[in-house]
Amino acid sequence: MERHNSLSRRAQEIPASPIRKLIPYADEAKKRGIKVYHLNIGQPDLKTPQIYFDRIKGFSGVDDYTNSAGLIELREAFAKYYKTWSIPFETNEIIITEGGSEAVSFAIATVADPGDDIMVIEPFYANYTAFSKFLSVNVVPVTSKPENGYRMPPLEDFERALTSKTRAILFPNPGNPNGVVYTKDELQMLMDFAVRNDLYIISDEVYREITFDGLKAYSMMDFGNQERVIIADSLSKRFNICGARIGAISSKNKKIMDAVMRMAMARLAANHISQYGAIGLFDLDNSYFKEMTKEYQNRRDVVYNELKKIPGIILNKPEGAFYMAAKIPVDDSEEFVKWMLQNFSYQNKTTMVAPLEGFYVTPNLGKSEIRIAYVLNSEELKDACSILARGLEVYNSEKKISVKR
Amino acid sequence: MERHNSLSRRAQEIPASPIRKLIPYADEAKKRGIKVYHLNIGQPDLKTPQIYFDRIKGFSGVDDYTNSAGLIELREAFAKYYKTWSIPFETNEIIITEGGSEAVSFAIATVADPGDDIMVIEPFYANYTAFSKFLSVNVVPVTSKPENGYRMPPLEDFERALTSKTRAILFPNPGNPNGVVYTKDELQMLMDFAVRNDLYIISDEVYREITFDGLKAYSMMDFGNQERVIIADSLSKRFNICGARIGAISSKNKKIMDAVMRMAMARLAANHISQYGAIGLFDLDNSYFKEMTKEYQNRRDVVYNELKKIPGIILNKPEGAFYMAAKIPVDDSEEFVKWMLQNFSYQNKTTMVAPLEGFYVTPNLGKSEIRIAYVLNSEELKDACSILARGLEVYNSEKKISVKR
Repeated sequence: MERHNSLSRRAQEIPASPIRKLIPYADEAKKRGIKVYHLNIGQPDLKTPQIYFDRIKGFSGVDDYTNSAGLIELREAFAKYYKTWSIPFETNEIIITEGGSEAVSFAIATVADPGDDIMVIEPFYANYTAFSKFLSVNVVPVTSKPENGYRMPPLEDFERALTSKTRAILFPNPGNPNGVVYTKDELQMLMDFAVRNDLYIISDEVYREITFDGLKAYSMMDFGNQERVIIADSLSKRFNICGARIGAISSKNKKIMDAVMRMAMARLAANHISQYGAIGLFDLDNSYFKEMTKEYQNRRDVVYNELKKIPGIILNKPEGAFYMAAKIPVDDSEEFVKWMLQNFSYQNKTTMVAPLEGFYVTPNLGKSEIRIAYVLNSEELKDACSILARGLEVYNSEKKISVKR
Repeated sequence: MERHNSLSRRAQEIPASPIRKLIPYADEAKKRGIKVYHLNIGQPDLKTPQIYFDRIKGFSGVDDYTNSAGLIELREAFAKYYKTWSIPFETNEIIITEGGSEAVSFAIATVADPGDDIMVIEPFYANYTAFSKFLSVNVVPVTSKPENGYRMPPLEDFERALTSKTRAILFPNPGNPNGVVYTKDELQMLMDFAVRNDLYIISDEVYREITFDGLKAYSMMDFGNQERVIIADSLSKRFNICGARIGAISSKNKKIMDAVMRMAMARLAANHISQYGAIGLFDLDNSYFKEMTKEYQNRRDVVYNELKKIPGIILNKPEGAFYMAAKIPVDDSEEFVKWMLQNFSYQNKTTMVAPLEGFYVTPNLGKSEIRIAYVLNSEELKDACSILARGLEVYNSEKKISVKR
C-alpha cells in the first residue's frame, strides 16, 4: 500500500458527528415528499434578535481582520455581562473565539499534550471527542446513568477514572445532551476533586441562561480556585446566532490566556462582521432571556408530557438547556432513527432525533438512548413527539413479528 | 510547583505571531501622536467589493448553522471558479473553512500525527509553525536564500531534510513573505521529489491571482499525482475580505476529504453570513482581478524603486502576492523595527515592517531580513519607504557612535 493512501491516526479516529451523520437519510425522506421534524440538532428556530442584523447592515468599507483577541467593544461587553453573573472576568481575560467549539479546542490544547487524558462525564457533547482526537488527546469517561437522572456520578467513579495523565475535567453545565443542571454540592465535589488531584476544569457554560423552575446554573468560577478554571462560552444558543460562530474563552490564569492568545494569533481573528453585530446583543435586557427561557420551559413540558406516555421509556425532566435524553425500548437507537427516516411516516411526516451512542465513549453504552432537541414550537413538538411514539410502537411490533418468523 | 501552573508543551511552544506581536509598540507610538505606516501585516487597504455587503444586507430571520461543508452555492461557485483555472475540483471535493488558516490546519492534521514532520521552505508564512505546534507536529525547514532571490532550494537540500517521519511538503505559491512565484520546473522538481518519497503536498494558493509581469502561478494540481495534493485556499486576499474568515480545503483524494469532513463537523460550520455574502463575489469578472493585480504591480514598483536606493540592501523584485522580503544592513531586524516605533519619526511619521526571523525555523536565520507588505496606496508607500530608508540611516549611524564609545 502506498503511503499517500494512509492518513494520520487522528484523522482516522475522529468520529463523524452523531448529530450530523444521519442527515443524508433525512434528505432522502424529504425527496420522497415526507416532512421531517428535526429534533436531532441544537439549532433553535427562534429568531435572531433584529439588533444584530441592523448593526450588520451598517458595516461597509473593508471587511478586515479584527485584533486576534476580538473586537475590544465585544470583549468589554462580555466582561460587563459576566459581572451581571458575578463572574469577575476583566476584558483582558477574555478572548473571542470561533464559537464555543474553538474555545473548547483551545482549552484542551493549552493544558493537554498528545497522550494526555481529559476526563468527561458521559453522555456528553459529542464533539468533545472530536476536538480531543484532533489534538491526539484521550477522552476518559465517568458515566452518569439515565436511571439516576444523569446526575453527577459519585466521587469514587472519578477517582477510579483518574490516571497520572489526567490534566483536566471537561463538562457542559447546563448539560448537553441531558439538560441536567448540576447542584452547588455536585459542583463543589468536582472542584474539590480537581484541587486534590491538581486538575484544570474546562467548564462549558454556553447554556447559562436557559434553566427552568427557578433553578440557577452555577459557574465553575463560583467555587474559588479560579486559577484552575477555563470557561468556554458561546453566543450561539443564548442569542440564536449559531451561524455567527462567536464564542469566548476566559480565565483568570494569565499563563493560560497568554498561550491562548498565541493560538488565537495563528488563526488571525474571528469573523469581523458577526463580532460587530454581536456587540448590540449585549444591550438586550433581562426580559429577553426570561421570555426565551419561558418558551423553552413550555416546550420541555410539552415534550415531557408527550413522551412519558411511551411504555417502558426512562425519561428525566430536564432542568436546563433545550435537550432531553431518554432511554427507549429499542436495542439500537441508531437503527431506529434510520428506520424512522427510511420506513416510517404518519400523515406524510416523520421525526428525526439523535441516537445517543455517539455521546458516550464507553463502547455499547447509550445504544438504547436518544436525544431530543426541543427547537420547534410547541404545536410542532407535540406532533413530532406523538409521531415518534407512534413510530416506536410500529417499530417494536414489526421487530417482534420478524423475530417470530 | 503546582501542576495547574504548568501548561502543555505545545502551549508553551506555540510562538507569538511575528507579525502581530510588535503591535503594542505601534500603539504606543500612536499614543505619542505619531502616524504609523503599517507595512507589517497582510491586510490590504483595498475596498471589499460592494456586492458582498449588498448580499449581507439582505440576510434576515435566523443566523443558523450552515452545512459543515459550507453553503452548497458557495462550494459550487468555488468549483466553477477552479475550472476557470483548469483545476478540476467538483463541488463535493471542496469544503469551506474558517479562512486559509483552518484549511492548512485541517490538511496538516489529516496527514500528520504528533512527532511527524512537515517540510517547509523557509522563510515561509510564519503561522504554519503555530498550526503545526498546535498539533504537536514538527516543522522541518529547507532554506531559500535572499542572495538567490529566495528561489526554490536545490533538490539535494530537500533530500537532506527528509526523515522517515516526513509526511508532507507545505508551501505557499505565490510566496509569502517573499513574493516568489515558482516556475513550472521548480514545482515539477518538488512534485517528483514528493512522488519518489511518497509525500503529500499541501499547497497554499491564496494569492493565485496576484502575479506580475504576465507570469502565471501554477497550481500543484497541474502536475498530475492529484491524489497527493491538498489545496488550501482563501477568499481573504483575493476579494479583500480578510475579516470574513472564508477559505476552502480541496482534494481529489476521497479519504482525505472524508477525514476533513469529520473535522469540519466537529466545529459545526464556518460563518454563515460571510459565506452568504461571498457567493456574490464569484460573479465579479476578470477585469476585477486585472485591476487589483495592476494596482499591486504598481505598488511593487514604487517600493522596489524606493528601497533599492538603500546602500547594502539585498532586494528581489517580487513576482506575486503583495510582499517583499529584503536583507537590510542591520544585525537584528526585530530590534530595528522596535527602534523605528520607539525612537524614530520623521515629520511625525514612522514605518512599521515585520522582522523576518519568525518566518524561519532554523535559529538565527532571517535576523537581518524584513518583510514589507505593500498594502497602502502608492503615495503613502513611497513616503513610508523613504522614512524607512531614512530611519535605517539614522539607526546605523547611532549604532556606530555607540560602538565607538
